[in-house]
Amino acid sequence: MEQKISFTKMHGLGNCYIYLDGITRDLSSIESFPALSHQVSDPYKGIGSDGLILILPSKKADVRMRIFNKDGSEAMNCGNGLRCVAKYAYEHQLVDSRQFAIETLSGNKQATVHLREGSVEEVTVDMGEPILERAQIPVAGPLGGQPVIREQLTVDGEDYAFTAVSMGNPHALFFVDAIAEAPIHKLGALLADTYPLFPNGVNVGFVEKLSDHEVNYRVWERGSGITQACGTGACASVVASILEKRVAKDVPVTVHLEGGDLTIEWQSESNHVLMTGEAKTICDGVYFQR
Amino acid sequence: MEQKISFTKMHGLGNCYIYLDGITRDLSSIESFPALSHQVSDPYKGIGSDGLILILPSKKADVRMRIFNKDGSEAMNCGNGLRCVAKYAYEHQLVDSRQFAIETLSGNKQATVHLREGSVEEVTVDMGEPILERAQIPVAGPLGGQPVIREQLTVDGEDYAFTAVSMGNPHALFFVDAIAEAPIHKLGALLADTYPLFPNGVNVGFVEKLSDHEVNYRVWERGSGITQACGTGACASVVASILEKRVAKDVPVTVHLEGGDLTIEWQSESNHVLMTGEAKTICDGVYFQR
Repeated sequence: MEQKISFTKMHGLGNCYIYLDGITRDLSSIESFPALSHQVSDPYKGIGSDGLILILPSKKADVRMRIFNKDGSEAMNCGNGLRCVAKYAYEHQLVDSRQFAIETLSGNKQATVHLREGSVEEVTVDMGEPILERAQIPVAGPLGGQPVIREQLTVDGEDYAFTAVSMGNPHALFFVDAIAEAPIHKLGALLADTYPLFPNGVNVGFVEKLSDHEVNYRVWERGSGITQACGTGACASVVASILEKRVAKDVPVTVHLEGGDLTIEWQSESNHVLMTGEAKTICDGVYFQR
Repeated sequence: MEQKISFTKMHGLGNCYIYLDGITRDLSSIESFPALSHQVSDPYKGIGSDGLILILPSKKADVRMRIFNKDGSEAMNCGNGLRCVAKYAYEHQLVDSRQFAIETLSGNKQATVHLREGSVEEVTVDMGEPILERAQIPVAGPLGGQPVIREQLTVDGEDYAFTAVSMGNPHALFFVDAIAEAPIHKLGALLADTYPLFPNGVNVGFVEKLSDHEVNYRVWERGSGITQACGTGACASVVASILEKRVAKDVPVTVHLEGGDLTIEWQSESNHVLMTGEAKTICDGVYFQR
């Protein structure tokens, strides 16, 4: 039996999802969200996406989001997805102010929308406090609460230095003189998934400082390889830049990623990291599920 | 300035296009179809597709189709696209009978839709006469009108035999005992694009006969590599099977491709090849062009 499902396809920096509105519409006829995520994500026989995001009523915040990956597994959080949910919620009047809270599996996130001619052009999301304690990132080694800043690492006889930051997920950041020459394939493949120093795996990031308020950033994500954009990684790149005293706190830093730009600010007073970036609507539609 | 463009995404065997209806709707505000094809085909920041197909009024047939590839170039014809255009035209009452003609850059094609509960389930397209003359396929070698059947070819000291057929584009067919063991990477990479025997390149196909009315088929397409489905290749695989006396004329043969099945029949009386297969609607929508 065919079922018609209303959707919106949105992206942030090319990270695209199919969004279903479970506040305005009744989703109870959908038998399985993991199965639907797998179907709609198929680039040939489906709409094509990185997964499915549900926008739902919340008891703890203004709206709630659930994220399903292409393979049907449920994800904790997604920075690019948060910005799109915020744009959708504001433009469809699911919330009544420019600032509101979004419930995710990794807690409530505060979002602020920025308007241009009535449309949401950019969104700022409060990504919370960075985690800097070695054991909590986690990075193997001496126990205790020390941060991991410019720690030496020798690979194949070559010396590297990295700074480690968790934004809920672990990142190792390597500073390079030119992003185009970063050893992303070599270190990414080696460190991301099975290197004993990073017991939970690690997102391997490379940062090139361009000025006091601008960096280039590229990432090899654990489990995924090279991706176009990683919101938590962009946050981690700026936190690491500050820890290494390359840029200052309380200054918005533009991070250039493969898929576009994000602006990151680590605020002294709250100790929170704010991420600002685009959210785009690609199309509205009706999907014919069989 | 943002523009809203109504579309339908459809596929045949996973070969998917964004379809615009230029009969019911006015497409004159669209500045550039090549540019739009490039935009909508982007899997991350667009809808995601193999290109754009326009359904237009025709002076020579019942409807006309124009096909734009992802890169904006205009294609001559597309078997999977023809079936989807036929489904769309019938279901949207752009034509008033189950059989009608579609104008393409490579001539008019006759289409017949097959219904189930009022919806078009499958479509038969008359793919015309196969071209068997060596010089017209083209295959290099002696001039003249002989067909190319089980011609020997030695590659790296190994002997192969191929039969050549053009369905408007050239195909070389190799029969194998088991499709899973076909040397598709080896022969595809070697022969498809730059081998002197095939001056215009060639689609390199492998055929495994399963019964008198069933074959497996895999293809390395010139310029593209391995693809999920190739309508003209499925036709060529059955024509070659008949030329090699493996199956008979006037018998529908089911061709199993990676993306699904097509049924092919080479008719004695007309000398035409008929292709029957699915056409599926994925979604209807409105694309926001910027």
